[in-house]
Amino acid sequence: MRTGVWLVGARGSVAVTSIVGASALRAGLAEPIGCVTEHPALRGAALPGFGDLVFGGHDVATTGLLKRAEALAAAGVVPGPLVAALHGELSTVDEEVRPLPHAETQAAAAAAIAADLTAFRERHGLERVVVVNVASTEPAPAPHPAHADLAALERAMQTPEVVLPPSALVAYAALRAGCPYVDFTPSTGARLPALHELALAQRLPYAGHDGKTGETLLKAVLAPMFAMRRLAVRSWSGINLLGGGDGATLADPGANAAKSASKQRVLGETLGYVPDGHTRIEYVPDIGDFKTAWDLITFAGFLGTPMRMEFTWHGCDSALAAPLVLDLVRLVAAAHRSGHAGPLPQLAFFFKDPLGEVDHGLAAQFEALVEFAASLQ
Amino acid sequence: MRTGVWLVGARGSVAVTSIVGASALRAGLAEPIGCVTEHPALRGAALPGFGDLVFGGHDVATTGLLKRAEALAAAGVVPGPLVAALHGELSTVDEEVRPLPHAETQAAAAAAIAADLTAFRERHGLERVVVVNVASTEPAPAPHPAHADLAALERAMQTPEVVLPPSALVAYAALRAGCPYVDFTPSTGARLPALHELALAQRLPYAGHDGKTGETLLKAVLAPMFAMRRLAVRSWSGINLLGGGDGATLADPGANAAKSASKQRVLGETLGYVPDGHTRIEYVPDIGDFKTAWDLITFAGFLGTPMRMEFTWHGCDSALAAPLVLDLVRLVAAAHRSGHAGPLPQLAFFFKDPLGEVDHGLAAQFEALVEFAASLQ
Amino acid sequence: MRTGVWLVGARGSVAVTSIVGASALRAGLAEPIGCVTEHPALRGAALPGFGDLVFGGHDVATTGLLKRAEALAAAGVVPGPLVAALHGELSTVDEEVRPLPHAETQAAAAAAIAADLTAFRERHGLERVVVVNVASTEPAPAPHPAHADLAALERAMQTPEVVLPPSALVAYAALRAGCPYVDFTPSTGARLPALHELALAQRLPYAGHDGKTGETLLKAVLAPMFAMRRLAVRSWSGINLLGGGDGATLADPGANAAKSASKQRVLGETLGYVPDGHTRIEYVPDIGDFKTAWDLITFAGFLGTPMRMEFTWHGCDSALAAPLVLDLVRLVAAAHRSGHAGPLPQLAFFFKDPLGEVDHGLAAQFEALVEFAASLQ
Amino acid sequence: MRTGVWLVGARGSVAVTSIVGASALRAGLAEPIGCVTEHPALRGAALPGFGDLVFGGHDVATTGLLKRAEALAAAGVVPGPLVAALHGELSTVDEEVRPLPHAETQAAAAAAIAADLTAFRERHGLERVVVVNVASTEPAPAPHPAHADLAALERAMQTPEVVLPPSALVAYAALRAGCPYVDFTPSTGARLPALHELALAQRLPYAGHDGKTGETLLKAVLAPMFAMRRLAVRSWSGINLLGGGDGATLADPGANAAKSASKQRVLGETLGYVPDGHTRIEYVPDIGDFKTAWDLITFAGFLGTPMRMEFTWHGCDSALAAPLVLDLVRLVAAAHRSGHAGPLPQLAFFFKDPLGEVDHGLAAQFEALVEFAASLQ
Ligand SMILES: NC(=O)c1ccc[n+]([C@@H]2O[C@H](COP(=O)([O-])OP(=O)(O)OC[C@H]3O[C@@H](n4cnc5c(N)ncnc54)[C@H](O)[C@@H]3O)[C@@H](O)[C@H]2O)c1
Ligand SMILES: NC(=O)c1ccc[n+]([C@@H]2O[C@H](COP(=O)([O-])OP(=O)(O)OC[C@H]3O[C@@H](n4cnc5c(N)ncnc54)[C@H](O)[C@@H]3O)[C@@H](O)[C@H]2O)c1
Ligand SMILES: NC(=O)c1ccc[n+]([C@@H]2O[C@H](COP(=O)([O-])OP(=O)(O)OC[C@H]3O[C@@H](n4cnc5c(N)ncnc54)[C@H](O)[C@@H]3O)[C@@H](O)[C@H]2O)c1
Ligand SMILES: NC(=O)c1ccc[n+]([C@@H]2O[C@H](COP(=O)([O-])OP(=O)(O)OC[C@H]3O[C@@H](n4cnc5c(N)ncnc54)[C@H](O)[C@@H]3O)[C@@H](O)[C@H]2O)c1
Ligand code: NA
Ligand code: NA
Repeated sequence: MRTGVWLVGARGSVAVTSIVGASALRAGLAEPIGCVTEHPALRGAALPGFGDLVFGGHDVATTGLLKRAEALAAAGVVPGPLVAALHGELSTVDEEVRPLPHAETQAAAAAAIAADLTAFRERHGLERVVVVNVASTEPAPAPHPAHADLAALERAMQTPEVVLPPSALVAYAALRAGCPYVDFTPSTGARLPALHELALAQRLPYAGHDGKTGETLLKAVLAPMFAMRRLAVRSWSGINLLGGGDGATLADPGANAAKSASKQRVLGETLGYVPDGHTRIEYVPDIGDFKTAWDLITFAGFLGTPMRMEFTWHGCDSALAAPLVLDLVRLVAAAHRSGHAGPLPQLAFFFKDPLGEVDHGLAAQFEALVEFAASLQ
Repeated sequence: MRTGVWLVGARGSVAVTSIVGASALRAGLAEPIGCVTEHPALRGAALPGFGDLVFGGHDVATTGLLKRAEALAAAGVVPGPLVAALHGELSTVDEEVRPLPHAETQAAAAAAIAADLTAFRERHGLERVVVVNVASTEPAPAPHPAHADLAALERAMQTPEVVLPPSALVAYAALRAGCPYVDFTPSTGARLPALHELALAQRLPYAGHDGKTGETLLKAVLAPMFAMRRLAVRSWSGINLLGGGDGATLADPGANAAKSASKQRVLGETLGYVPDGHTRIEYVPDIGDFKTAWDLITFAGFLGTPMRMEFTWHGCDSALAAPLVLDLVRLVAAAHRSGHAGPLPQLAFFFKDPLGEVDHGLAAQFEALVEFAASLQ
Repeated sequence: MRTGVWLVGARGSVAVTSIVGASALRAGLAEPIGCVTEHPALRGAALPGFGDLVFGGHDVATTGLLKRAEALAAAGVVPGPLVAALHGELSTVDEEVRPLPHAETQAAAAAAIAADLTAFRERHGLERVVVVNVASTEPAPAPHPAHADLAALERAMQTPEVVLPPSALVAYAALRAGCPYVDFTPSTGARLPALHELALAQRLPYAGHDGKTGETLLKAVLAPMFAMRRLAVRSWSGINLLGGGDGATLADPGANAAKSASKQRVLGETLGYVPDGHTRIEYVPDIGDFKTAWDLITFAGFLGTPMRMEFTWHGCDSALAAPLVLDLVRLVAAAHRSGHAGPLPQLAFFFKDPLGEVDHGLAAQFEALVEFAASLQ
Repeated sequence: MRTGVWLVGARGSVAVTSIVGASALRAGLAEPIGCVTEHPALRGAALPGFGDLVFGGHDVATTGLLKRAEALAAAGVVPGPLVAALHGELSTVDEEVRPLPHAETQAAAAAAIAADLTAFRERHGLERVVVVNVASTEPAPAPHPAHADLAALERAMQTPEVVLPPSALVAYAALRAGCPYVDFTPSTGARLPALHELALAQRLPYAGHDGKTGETLLKAVLAPMFAMRRLAVRSWSGINLLGGGDGATLADPGANAAKSASKQRVLGETLGYVPDGHTRIEYVPDIGDFKTAWDLITFAGFLGTPMRMEFTWHGCDSALAAPLVLDLVRLVAAAHRSGHAGPLPQLAFFFKDPLGEVDHGLAAQFEALVEFAASLQ
């Protein structure tokens, strides 16, 4: 089941960590720590192996993969000796990383992107290619009537107007090229009625949004705990300090707003009410690729007695995200083979802002995931 | 369904908070915050109402309930105005709190305890009385051959020898008097083969051990999170700083050891391996009834990248425990009525060190609880 | 040495806590915890006693002092029984709290304020009245040429134009009425060249700005620690979560900016460079009068090794501020008697954003304070 | 001013980090981050330069310096490229690391140690050699009458009896060989009346005990803050989690007790009373060379209002200690040259458990240090 992985943002931290990790796993140089698809409860599922994955992608940046991998090693994200040992493999993948095509109309750009995908699939004799968006987070786009309808969208794309944000353009191209699509970012991606229509027409599955790696992961187990215990959460405030490329992007208020919103959703959905407080994201260059999140939760117990908890999470975002990218590729590829089309709410476990009406508690999401994986053959 | 609640340790913080709270709920002066049996998923279950509960108990202390309630109000555990408003009710309950009977042999002591229980049941025309141990934690007892066999136990109890620790003596007396038994403490309680035999013979259910209110509650959601995500927990260290009566008792190394052990069990069972680190309990008088627990967890992500999280939990133990005591009484009374006998592993949700081979993840325990509650009629 | 204390914002949390506390100290019902002037190193200084202080003030709010004190007791800021015991005293002070005078021109308003001050001094036969601004923080005012020169200012005040922000208007009136002035807030107060001129002309001392009670207090000892040890602070980020009246005001971006700026000043001044990071203030109503501040400091040790510390401060702002207000009144009154005029940089110990070129390390500030107190007779 | 540095425990983490760092400074490959003697306030002092230091030492371990340095690089304590660049220098120093001499009597052992010191001084033409104890912490020794008197001590040392613990034996030998002595550990070292007598007779200075690098450093600024502000500290509890060689040693209850005691001393001395609470040290292998300390401080403000702060310190002990070792060598060498003899309480800034009756506040200690450094010529 040779499976292509086309990473949009292929020179970013998440992408490069995924590539280094998959290469290390194939070479037997690392254990699959953090890989959910290696959980005993999922291990039997009919998924492509790590060794079956072939990487390529688009990026607007030009620094080579090797250099990016070395920078990640210097920052403590991946082990230096591993990068050194995988020199050859990384150079090979680097040849498959293209600049993002540009054109007069979005229709033409989409065609160029789709051509890249098709050529990649054919060049490597791949059964299918899963496109994963791990590019920088975009600001939320202005609404547009053509988003609601595929025919209208395709008409608009023929004009010089920029009707789709970059992530949705790629999603469109992927679906047109017969590729399942995963959005690991909070950007729009396939989340437009017109693209939903296209996915169904093409019988392609898609998944998203926004990988759940840090504070939101904790919220997904702590909020249900308060709910199950009927403790009344009064306020939940948080701050995320991060450097790195993603931090610099999120310092932009537009991107920050998109991200902060997807971070709080879990509270309302799990508790049944929205407590006081906000989640902030703050760019602190010295923090680098290791993010520090601090949350304070105030709550009331029996007879109103006020209590509180706080936590500090000090995690390496890329090292948390990369194995999930591999998990998602394996699962979405298998879902495609099994004939799934449209959104995959069964993958809510992986996302901050999951598609569909789903339970936001992590344990329930895990159960749904296990069941889904077992159903694939 | 008038139900008696016989609290062993009736003048302690947990007991008094339970009594104040149940009285406040009956009087409509408080909301059932922290009461799991009021969760929508359990609300339909056929349980006795808060207003159906009638309280009594044993204690070795002699300070009146009212005075204890006022001390708890001064410490911020319960609202002062509530205590003032419930003066009459607390005095009434106080009349039902007896000194713990003593006798030459444990057989005679058990008979005196059982007589207190029977008289209480008859005096108030109760359908049944649930005995709950909320007395000070005992040191682990020396093993004794008579613990393994009911007949041998009853022979030994006729002699002046002290064959049972206090909690087990009460459990024996409760079961002899036809009362279901709950152990909210880490003490022995009904956890002896001979008492198991007695519970089955008497067709009585029992539950335990050690109410899950703070750090262990968090472990029961965080450890499964690490497990589901396949993150490798390298160490988990914790310290609990607490004052109050329970803190003073736990400063005793014997009691401390019993408690610390039940606190770490969840890790091994949930992760499948035991990480480095220990949990300490430390008595700091100034901390009073609000306990502060701090935990540091170090873990590895993809490719071994080291990460960490820490949390501080600042909770009022008695205000966390009291609603669970009421929940347990309601559930165990209904289980008794439905014909359950022997240990109730379905109540693992409530305990640090639950009876039986059970899942230690909180979400799975909650599911088991919901199913169990639905089965009672 | 009967000394008047005129509080601008007399119905606010800091003011009421100061009044309750001074009354309790006079009545022998409390210990002077948190009073710096009771430190052994300052105790000998020739200062007015707590019992010598007579309170009055202005406010725009109309809720009575007693009601405000009861609200503070309910919030845990002051002990309820103390408020009950001081009923009489608080009512007496309440009679001396006036609405803030308004008039057609600022000259007329200033005259009315000054008249209130003079009448207060005479009514109670006070040696002097110290005016302390503890009103809500104002946004920074627009610059105005008349701020630079007393004659120009007084001309502008005759017109209907609003040339001074409220805090500076009060400072002007105080100085005109012969009263020393203290600004406990980050507002403008006496910090204008024209008012400096007036203070010198009137031979009156003034002090400020912004009481140093929480996070900045910690910065004032931690930043010197890093400096003395030559550890290189890379980033210092903080968030302050607070409810209460002050929190609501600071939720306003203008006031927030004023406050956040005065909070970071200590870093640059003490370290000699400004590390990455910001300090945020966030209004979370449920947090109430107890503020929670969290700071993360990343720093480098020998050979660049990266390290970090974080702290959480959970303090009751009003209970930290109130004894400092009393200290400042005692010290400024004595300074006035000793003939000091103009700014008092010797009181930098008390302020986030002290007047003058001063050392920002707390220990050096304390030394300066001790020396200053000893010099007063 | 070529100065020898004789490290007892020369293959330990602190020693090796000191050696790597001094070599890097001499080679211009690093900045003196963390070096107090490079503070502007001390920079003018007449101290030997980093380039003037020549290293040697004793250890009971046999792993070469280079291997130890590489292990420290792998653990993130020192930069790997630096170790690679200093290969030659480290090998040279390694030749000066000897096994600790053993003999039938302690007199003979001392003579052998002293001979090593003298030979080192002569071999390198050093003006003086400062001996620094950075060996594993010893348990507190049993008291012995000969500790009180030099003549009695030297008689006892002639017998096979072991009258001195290892650290004191080395201190004796150092003083006999004319070398100033610094104890960076909590062990006995020169802290015996008999050795004090010897130091005075030999006109040699000595300094100690126990380098102040983490939690105690923070206590030395935070406790004075509470004291200056007259806030009443009710409890101060702490836990130190550490791996590494030092952690393994301190897991031993005897060594642990010695260390914990020196950690609490600062509180009593600075506050004037001893609050509730303890400091624990716990060995957690996975934590490695980066120690995590957590402290909770509860305190009362005005009118008794309860407040709290907590901090987490995540520091690399060896990277904090090593520059202090270099500082101490420079200062003690200069003190020796200037004619100082006996204990040096002026160096209290560096120690958890300083010699003499000294101020325990860090700022006061720094002032004393600056004055002392200025006095040396
Ligand atoms: N790391 C995590 O834990 C995590 C979790 C959830 C979501 N995400 C999201 O994943 C994305 C990647 O994160 P990262 O840390 O790797 O960021 P990064 O900044 O290191 O990488 C982003 C890459 O995208 C490229 N890029 C930007 N615009 C592009 C475009 N239009 N087309 C193609 N490439 C483009 C950039 O050149 C860069 O190489 C972000 O959107 C982030 O919010 C990350
Ligand atoms: N509060 C919690 O969150 C929590 C959680 C789990 C378990 N527990 C357990 O609940 C128990 C009660 O806790 P607490 O905080 O109320 O303690 P407490 O010290 O306030 O009360 C214990 C009471 O038991 C009484 N007692 C002691 N020995 C007795 C005996 N042999 N027979 C009858 N009474 C006896 C004491 O006089 C006291 O009144 C403890 O064992 C504690 O470990 C509490
Ligand atoms: N509490 C602390 O630790 C602390 C520390 C530093 C500075 N401060 C400053 O002290 C001030 C008071 O804080 P608080 O917590 O008591 O706030 P608060 O909101 O409880 O009280 C402010 C009072 O000022 C009154 N007021 C508003 N505008 C006024 C005006 N123009 N003239 C007269 N009165 C006016 C309000 O009606 C209110 O009663 C704030 O500016 C705050 O920033 C407080
Ligand atoms: N690192 C810090 O921040 C810090 C702070 C204060 C004190 N200290 C003290 O410094 C000492 C060294 O710490 P470390 O982290 O380097 O420990 P370490 O375990 O890495 O090194 C100790 C070295 O001492 C050697 N040794 C043991 N007994 C000896 C003896 N009798 N003679 C000669 N060598 C002997 C060991 O073989 C080892 O090489 C410890 O006592 C520690 O408590 C360290
Ligand atoms: Na923390
Ligand atoms: Na914390």
